[in-house]
Amino acid sequence: MYKVKVYVTLRESVLDPQGEAVKNALHSMNYGEVGSVRIGKYMELEIEKGSKEVEETVNEICSRLLSNPVIENYRYEIEECVAL
Amino acid sequence: MYKVKVYVTLRESVLDPQGEAVKNALHSMNYGEVGSVRIGKYMELEIEKGSKEVEETVNEICSRLLSNPVIENYRYEIEECVAL
Repeated sequence: MYKVKVYVTLRESVLDPQGEAVKNALHSMNYGEVGSVRIGKYMELEIEKGSKEVEETVNEICSRLLSNPVIENYRYEIEECVAL
Repeated sequence: MYKVKVYVTLRESVLDPQGEAVKNALHSMNYGEVGSVRIGKYMELEIEKGSKEVEETVNEICSRLLSNPVIENYRYEIEECVAL
């Protein structure tokens, strides 16, 4: 079994109104030292060994469902779990 | 300046309907090898040097605004950026 961590972030050129709102909230809570906030998604998947390479599966899943490639980037880490 | 990456995840004991929905979507897209999906948040903050230690600031921000400590855990990584 593989444990996969997926990080989806907005592309640099895309405005992040949610992050902007968090930044303004932090400023009004007296955390003026916070300069910029960008908000993304973090996902943990468990994937069984299948017929395809796990990396291929993860790439397909990320680009087809978990992210919107027009405005978002994704990266991932794959850990193999070995049953003892 | 510090670059801070914050990861907010649901506690193990808390149900994740959003993750469940993603799992079901993946199964109907013929990715039956996906066993479980948990969805969290990922945030990147830029924080200027302030009067307090950055770690203290980040802990406060995470527990007061970025996460709900009743149902979520958070962890973070702090990188110091040096202007050359």
